[in-house]
Amino acid sequence: MNNQDKLKLSQSLVSASEKELSANSSISHNPKRRALLGQTLAYAGAAGAMGLGAKSALAQNLPIPESNKTMGRPIPPEDYGMPSKYESKVKRRRTDVFVNRQNFSDWSMTPLASQLGTMTPNGLIFERHHNGIPDINPDVHKFVIHGLVRQPLEFSMADIVKYPSVTKFHFMECSGNGLTDWLAPKSKTVQQTHGLLSCAQWTGVPVSTLLEEAGVLKEAKWGLAEGADGSAHARSIPIDKLLNDSLLVYASNGEMLRPENGYPLRMFTPGWEGNTSVKWLRRLKLGTEPWHLRSETARYTDPMPDGKWRQFSMEMEAKSVITSPSGGMTIRPGVVQVQGFAWSGNGKIRGVDITLDGGKTWREARLEEPVMDQCLTRFRYEFKWDGSPMKMASRTVDSTGYVQPTVDDIKKVRAIVGFVQHNNAVFPWAVNPAGEVTNAIG
Amino acid sequence: MNNQDKLKLSQSLVSASEKELSANSSISHNPKRRALLGQTLAYAGAAGAMGLGAKSALAQNLPIPESNKTMGRPIPPEDYGMPSKYESKVKRRRTDVFVNRQNFSDWSMTPLASQLGTMTPNGLIFERHHNGIPDINPDVHKFVIHGLVRQPLEFSMADIVKYPSVTKFHFMECSGNGLTDWLAPKSKTVQQTHGLLSCAQWTGVPVSTLLEEAGVLKEAKWGLAEGADGSAHARSIPIDKLLNDSLLVYASNGEMLRPENGYPLRMFTPGWEGNTSVKWLRRLKLGTEPWHLRSETARYTDPMPDGKWRQFSMEMEAKSVITSPSGGMTIRPGVVQVQGFAWSGNGKIRGVDITLDGGKTWREARLEEPVMDQCLTRFRYEFKWDGSPMKMASRTVDSTGYVQPTVDDIKKVRAIVGFVQHNNAVFPWAVNPAGEVTNAIG
Repeated sequence: MNNQDKLKLSQSLVSASEKELSANSSISHNPKRRALLGQTLAYAGAAGAMGLGAKSALAQNLPIPESNKTMGRPIPPEDYGMPSKYESKVKRRRTDVFVNRQNFSDWSMTPLASQLGTMTPNGLIFERHHNGIPDINPDVHKFVIHGLVRQPLEFSMADIVKYPSVTKFHFMECSGNGLTDWLAPKSKTVQQTHGLLSCAQWTGVPVSTLLEEAGVLKEAKWGLAEGADGSAHARSIPIDKLLNDSLLVYASNGEMLRPENGYPLRMFTPGWEGNTSVKWLRRLKLGTEPWHLRSETARYTDPMPDGKWRQFSMEMEAKSVITSPSGGMTIRPGVVQVQGFAWSGNGKIRGVDITLDGGKTWREARLEEPVMDQCLTRFRYEFKWDGSPMKMASRTVDSTGYVQPTVDDIKKVRAIVGFVQHNNAVFPWAVNPAGEVTNAIG
Repeated sequence: MNNQDKLKLSQSLVSASEKELSANSSISHNPKRRALLGQTLAYAGAAGAMGLGAKSALAQNLPIPESNKTMGRPIPPEDYGMPSKYESKVKRRRTDVFVNRQNFSDWSMTPLASQLGTMTPNGLIFERHHNGIPDINPDVHKFVIHGLVRQPLEFSMADIVKYPSVTKFHFMECSGNGLTDWLAPKSKTVQQTHGLLSCAQWTGVPVSTLLEEAGVLKEAKWGLAEGADGSAHARSIPIDKLLNDSLLVYASNGEMLRPENGYPLRMFTPGWEGNTSVKWLRRLKLGTEPWHLRSETARYTDPMPDGKWRQFSMEMEAKSVITSPSGGMTIRPGVVQVQGFAWSGNGKIRGVDITLDGGKTWREARLEEPVMDQCLTRFRYEFKWDGSPMKMASRTVDSTGYVQPTVDDIKKVRAIVGFVQHNNAVFPWAVNPAGEVTNAIG
């Protein structure tokens, strides 16, 4: 497109925008007109008409900010940069629902309400440890493949990084995400209700590459992945998951894993519960059956209505949550921007609906690009709030057609007793006439 | 695929892998066979046959590492994580080619040899400042659109984040990247020769959204973007670039911009030289002509053979560099893994060739997924080094068909005098019989 064509386009945009402003209409509630105008323009128009943004400016006398009049901070000889001091509240945090008297078998959560885009910075990826964070020197760390293989193999980190690597964008979620808030409000913020969730660019070697080198024997049907941490955390993983898409990951978001995220090597099982992505990985043993380890008997199992417990339910099914406005925030009457994340361990996010009336009626939210497989997807929705009490929630559907259930839906097929895993239920926030947003589960 | 089918597949993979091992052949030099076997397997086979990785392990008596016997570091109440102490050398660094006696108008470079995957962590994104890093409080920062618009507008940061955002993966490169090393070796490492280059997930609002709200007047052909820093750095940007794909960015890699990267708001012009992505952005003024600012007359221009200087050459053309092995490293005879990055401001990377003999012969490197538009793309190539002296380099071609030039190619159309910008030339590393890798430009 040449400059002249572009100018014509920009003129037509201006005219359309003027029409919007003069009509002072709420475009996002008028699907027919939105379709006519085209999406980008409609959003811009909506923003303007709904008073999202700008104030009229007297541009002749722009004030010169102080920062333009002074020299800034110089560059040090070498450094590793940190966030602005104005962002100091954006931190990982432990649970505040109960007092965990030790902090070795513990977790800390990602501040989802502050996350922008779709990736979680390495410093904010959630943590879950069964016996603290080990200190592992990558120069001495070894990873061994053994059991039902033609030839047991030992790899140093220097060996592993030489193999062709793959780089994938994926969310990771702890199966215990939301376990404190099934039946009644316990947590205040979305960091506490949903923060055992992060998303990153993971880099590593396909498990299949190294298994092929070791030679998988015919009888091998499961792998035992074990960590070099103080709990020797381990999980049994089916051979098809290992060969299909599992990775031996050594980097996240462009640099070596952080110590708390498995440095120098972890298993990564896309779309599956976080604890199967075993950190500080030291061995993978192939066998004929699962090992029925502590983390697949005493932990990470699902109580069923008949009193039995289901093992090996490792897929993280489709889920979504509104991150803004969310618990602890206060809104004012007028235009409200709803934002949140949706994700599925089984594919892409197809759509997200929003309710403002506790599930009676639903309206479609916009998905923001990029919409990637097994990744956080951001959604937005705008409306005008008149100050009446509300109950807001999001509900997602993924590319398999699976619809995010309510707690009542889940109760029909599972028992909700104790520290229950796999809470992917629709999650409501209440708003009172003062605009205060609170957890409204149950 | 069910488990049984998968097992069959894994068996066929094992057989193929065994054939590779017995043949002890170098598959990556045998394209026909590689095609037959399929890519993933061929690479795995190549790795095994070429001895990239594993040692045979006596798996019966696996040693238990110390970290399995001790409790790890507990989780603090709240934190923002940092890299492992074992990664402390991975830092941004200033130039070591000459002594810059002040560090206000300065730059620091990304450690590309340590970057994994394709994204640069926020703490390592390169810096270039014209008067240091300003301290800007986002609660008081204002962004103004004025000049040839229907209605001048002023936005707070709280306003801007309410607009529908987009999230894009893009490289960013300083037009001065490589300016010290056109004609003779000056820099030792790839951090010094090519480190004014980073890649991130950028989140913000399309400039077009806010321009449409202000109303672009017919006469507007250029925009003046100005920063709130001590140099009031500013650039003229054509209206079509602003409307097509430029963003008002407030976040990188999932969190608010770091202070040194423009906190709280910057222009982002995908594929264009970094200085047009004006940081600490405080205003955008539309006009009929470019402003011929200091940064488009005294700086950021290209000397031509006829003695004139070219202005406004802002696209960053296709370029690539080998990051490993690279300057300062030492290799040993045997299998050598070549890795590097390729990128283009004009599209996707189509291919990368490698020479080991100073450009006489070229072989195709593998591109690693994801290959994204205007993004860093990782390439790999393996070969067996016999200890003879070598001159290695990479050369890329992008999706427009543009081939990365040599310095000699560039000399035919431009003059190389002074601090010359836009060095996208093929860059060679020499290897001596001791395996020492050094800058071999010129």
